[in-house]
Amino acid sequence: MHEKVNLLLVGGAVVTMNDAYDVLPNGAVAIRGDSIVAVGDVEEVTAVYEAAQTLDCTGQVIMPGLVNAHTHVPMSLLRGLNDDLRLDVWLGYLMPLEREFVTPEFVKLGTRLAAAEMIRSGITSFADMYYFEEAIAEETAVIGMRALLGQTILVFPAPDAPTYEDALILCRRFIERWNGHELIQPAVSPHAWYTATPELLRACADLARAYDVPIHTHIGETRLELENCQEQNHMRTVTWNAKQSILDTKLLAAHCVHIDRDEMFQLKEAGAGVAHCPTSNLKLASGIAPVSQMLEMGLNVGVGTDGPASNNDLDMFEETRLAALLAKTASNDPTMLPARQAVEMATIGGARALHMADVTGSLEVGKRADVIVVAMDGVHNQPHFHNHEDAIYSRLIYAAKAPDVVHVVCNGRFLLHDRQLTTIDEAETKEQAAAVAARIDAFVHERESSPYNKLVFLAGVERQESFEVQVKVPLDGRDRILSILESGQIEINRQSHYRQYDTYFLFAKHDPDAARLRYREDEFINEHGEPYQVRSRLTLIGEEERAQFPNAVMLSRSRFLASADRTLRFYREYFAPDTEVTLVKDRLRWHILYEGTDFAINLDQVVTPTMPGYYLEIKSRTWSRNDAERKARLIAEILELFGVNPEMAEPKDYPELALIAG
Amino acid sequence: MHEKVNLLLVGGAVVTMNDAYDVLPNGAVAIRGDSIVAVGDVEEVTAVYEAAQTLDCTGQVIMPGLVNAHTHVPMSLLRGLNDDLRLDVWLGYLMPLEREFVTPEFVKLGTRLAAAEMIRSGITSFADMYYFEEAIAEETAVIGMRALLGQTILVFPAPDAPTYEDALILCRRFIERWNGHELIQPAVSPHAWYTATPELLRACADLARAYDVPIHTHIGETRLELENCQEQNHMRTVTWNAKQSILDTKLLAAHCVHIDRDEMFQLKEAGAGVAHCPTSNLKLASGIAPVSQMLEMGLNVGVGTDGPASNNDLDMFEETRLAALLAKTASNDPTMLPARQAVEMATIGGARALHMADVTGSLEVGKRADVIVVAMDGVHNQPHFHNHEDAIYSRLIYAAKAPDVVHVVCNGRFLLHDRQLTTIDEAETKEQAAAVAARIDAFVHERESSPYNKLVFLAGVERQESFEVQVKVPLDGRDRILSILESGQIEINRQSHYRQYDTYFLFAKHDPDAARLRYREDEFINEHGEPYQVRSRLTLIGEEERAQFPNAVMLSRSRFLASADRTLRFYREYFAPDTEVTLVKDRLRWHILYEGTDFAINLDQVVTPTMPGYYLEIKSRTWSRNDAERKARLIAEILELFGVNPEMAEPKDYPELALIAG
Repeated sequence: MHEKVNLLLVGGAVVTMNDAYDVLPNGAVAIRGDSIVAVGDVEEVTAVYEAAQTLDCTGQVIMPGLVNAHTHVPMSLLRGLNDDLRLDVWLGYLMPLEREFVTPEFVKLGTRLAAAEMIRSGITSFADMYYFEEAIAEETAVIGMRALLGQTILVFPAPDAPTYEDALILCRRFIERWNGHELIQPAVSPHAWYTATPELLRACADLARAYDVPIHTHIGETRLELENCQEQNHMRTVTWNAKQSILDTKLLAAHCVHIDRDEMFQLKEAGAGVAHCPTSNLKLASGIAPVSQMLEMGLNVGVGTDGPASNNDLDMFEETRLAALLAKTASNDPTMLPARQAVEMATIGGARALHMADVTGSLEVGKRADVIVVAMDGVHNQPHFHNHEDAIYSRLIYAAKAPDVVHVVCNGRFLLHDRQLTTIDEAETKEQAAAVAARIDAFVHERESSPYNKLVFLAGVERQESFEVQVKVPLDGRDRILSILESGQIEINRQSHYRQYDTYFLFAKHDPDAARLRYREDEFINEHGEPYQVRSRLTLIGEEERAQFPNAVMLSRSRFLASADRTLRFYREYFAPDTEVTLVKDRLRWHILYEGTDFAINLDQVVTPTMPGYYLEIKSRTWSRNDAERKARLIAEILELFGVNPEMAEPKDYPELALIAG
Repeated sequence: MHEKVNLLLVGGAVVTMNDAYDVLPNGAVAIRGDSIVAVGDVEEVTAVYEAAQTLDCTGQVIMPGLVNAHTHVPMSLLRGLNDDLRLDVWLGYLMPLEREFVTPEFVKLGTRLAAAEMIRSGITSFADMYYFEEAIAEETAVIGMRALLGQTILVFPAPDAPTYEDALILCRRFIERWNGHELIQPAVSPHAWYTATPELLRACADLARAYDVPIHTHIGETRLELENCQEQNHMRTVTWNAKQSILDTKLLAAHCVHIDRDEMFQLKEAGAGVAHCPTSNLKLASGIAPVSQMLEMGLNVGVGTDGPASNNDLDMFEETRLAALLAKTASNDPTMLPARQAVEMATIGGARALHMADVTGSLEVGKRADVIVVAMDGVHNQPHFHNHEDAIYSRLIYAAKAPDVVHVVCNGRFLLHDRQLTTIDEAETKEQAAAVAARIDAFVHERESSPYNKLVFLAGVERQESFEVQVKVPLDGRDRILSILESGQIEINRQSHYRQYDTYFLFAKHDPDAARLRYREDEFINEHGEPYQVRSRLTLIGEEERAQFPNAVMLSRSRFLASADRTLRFYREYFAPDTEVTLVKDRLRWHILYEGTDFAINLDQVVTPTMPGYYLEIKSRTWSRNDAERKARLIAEILELFGVNPEMAEPKDYPELALIAG
């Protein structure tokens, strides 16, 4: 009499990833309900078990489902939207977009799209971190994948929570609803220490311990993060997390690129898991994580794809292969992270990192049936050698591809059968994703339609309309002007001296009137000629309108001011101007009262690009054409007073002058 | 009236890779004979041309065939045979195997297997270097791919040429036969400067210039290569190649990992191409090539998979993606080597590197029709965004996979049609590859069956049978022995003092009689106690036979001596022993004549592992049982002379004593 089971996978090479690394060249796996009831040689297993369904896996590999140790699945909907950018610019594009688009429906669709791809690449378990994680849980459970899902908590307003207290409440509810689910392990996800306060981190640790659920967070991703932590907290990132009790939980730490041996040891002592994300780390130029050292120390390290917006796929074959390749060059030793250890990281190692090794990660009796079958007959994976016992791992790591995955079973249920998804309507999902992409395209199109919109989406702006009457005249020398200003015949209200570092972003090179963005640093100079204060401002100068007067010009301009709290480099990469003009000038400025009217007088020496002589500017705000005419007349008088010929007036603005001079 | 063409590809996004990087969202390509006659918007092209065959490529990308800038195609037959090894060990396994297996039939089959994989991954052109390159050319031409094929020339005996003069003759014949072929560009391939003499390199350069054909060689792959070049030639690798006139040819330099800015400049000035092979460089821990710098300088850089024995596949999508990812982290800048530039490297950049840009690498009228069509509807490549003009490159580089390639046309001929190979019988090729693999398996099995065979395959051995009578007795002190030896009552022929550093590789831990390998360094010590000479020897000590005599033991042993010209580390990794025993001893040795018979007397102090006291050994060669009995009696007399009790004799060999002590 045979024992009844639901499914028998027979005839393939069974790569068990058990402690002995048993490989059964002609093996079988028996599955009853959600669990594995037998793993053994094919004769052995079929002698005992009889199945409702038997799959012949001859020539294929039967192995544990892969564990994607770190991702943000809904970001599949943002795949390829922004690439080859620096992290801050990428976030500058992304975050306003997330505020606009991320809803429970969005994350469900993104989860479905990502799950389709993950299942096709042999993934049965993944660790996620995003907003509306409860919606992700619902979708994941319906699809039938296993997941550690972390509700994001951070100090900034998030799409699903205006404050972190709200996020904590959301997270607690999420845990209460899902803890104990057969597929879903809810988790607490403080995004990272640098988007948290110590109180936030401690509240997360308390919550995780209260329910005995994992914490899934980012640690040590970039060098800048490490440097900031050392500067702000006088300790390294893992130590800082430990101080906030994060290491007293079941921790899954993503990235860990910039951690040292002490920190590895702390993580190991805490029983923490590490998610190594090599593609994301390379793509964002974060660095190469010291994985070989971690593995040598016995840390539980898994492999993660990270989110599809920074990878851009969810292919664990590619990811694990890259992990194996990188470790060799990083440690200058081609014997490091050999193929078997790489397969281990992608399966049982990942399961350990996710604190899920009791249920998944290897093919062992009693574990849940998370099993994949991989074709090995592709021309890219031929021929096969059999002398070395590790050759099968080598074929899986260095030659197999995601599309070689034929069947995927998770928790005893088929998710992929003969390369067909069984729980996801792929066509419908792609169609819905295309619809979302079209909406995002429209949003981005609006943002990209003008520098003004880009500025608004980035930071918000303050509008300032200005009407000015002004004249600018080149001078050979400034001594005469200075002596007249110092003679007392003109009433001076205020005087200042500064050096102006202007960078103009021009978006239409040949149109001097088009909108332009000016990043200005004013360096104020004291009476000893030393700078004593610096001020940065970002000004979007709108299209100009000009009206000619005798001896002067009236300009009406809209200006949009924004705080310049980011670097010039950021703005350059964010706004991607057609032309950039740098102008440095030494400016002496007097606010004078002439005929009861305020004027500003600038005596400018342009230092970069080198321009001979000086420029005299006389300016005044104006409110009407009549007023402008009057002020134009007064300007003519002041020019005469200075002995300057108004016919020499220069109509061009500084950036245009600089373009000519440069 | 429409003009007739053979093939129209219509409706896809045409990524031209022309100088303007034109992308036609709804484009078409018309092909007549071997050439492209039109590239344009679909209405435009179909208004003029009518084709015997029209392929609807809606939703797909039509782009130039990829250029694999460096590989060794026949090594597809060695894929996955040896992985995760250091280069010297890998070569230690590989080279005897190549001597045994590489024939014209072998390289043809390997070419076919590799071509099947390359075509499936969208490659239409490749640059190769191997033995029997003429056979590779014949097979490549039949299959219908475009290739730059370099006949290997090196100072060592090769499978196809016992000397480099023979290889040069072979190469000249190869060039004469193939130069001018529509698909095959013959080339001269000095393997590398370090497997060449200056004369060889200059002869190659002369040959290449005589026929105006390219040189395809390895330059600057490893740090060791650079260091050796600097030590031997007092210059860097590119400079050394330049000195031998290699840069005066149409050069394709593979790897260029360890080259500096000066060398880049030399390559650029020479119009040379560089083949960047990131997977191979990572896998063998060679390092990361400074590709961003090369590109910035305007060097022609292509992407190469390298041979499938060190990759282990021929997937240009994977390779190019890795190139793009690595460049960012290598230069600490995520904006480096963006997707469009990566596509460029994989197409027209590679064509330039191969000196083939006049015929392939871009979709332009007049060029040969090397065109591929890539599906973009996989769930791993969804959704699509259209705001950024580079988004299509991003999808191709960061998300597309080799199996997305649907059609491949080379020189106007279909090589892949609807994912079916049209010029290769894939099933037969796989079958034949499996048969070769089985033969290689048998060869490796024989090699791996004993340390003796591994030694023979590596280096050849010299057999030495020895029969010795010997005794070994532990002593508390050695003063009495020394004073007797110095007293003149024993006739001493020769005396020496050395320190012996022995490393034993044991292959069956618990069997003291089993074969073992000894790596011995003898450090000779002069009368001042200073080392003055070192000698290394590798000895395979065969199984022992023992015969007991009163007071002594007769041992018969076979010994196999090999020159120890490699490092201990190499032997360790090559022989992969079960146990390794290190033993360092200080040895005083006397060759004496006692009763007209030669004996060796050793007074040994074992330093590592620490053993108390000394060991006295008395040994003599023997030729018969009678002779052995006589010598055993004489040994007993000498022991008595020394006042040593023969019952204290130690039957164990040094490695066993060390195992106990250690």
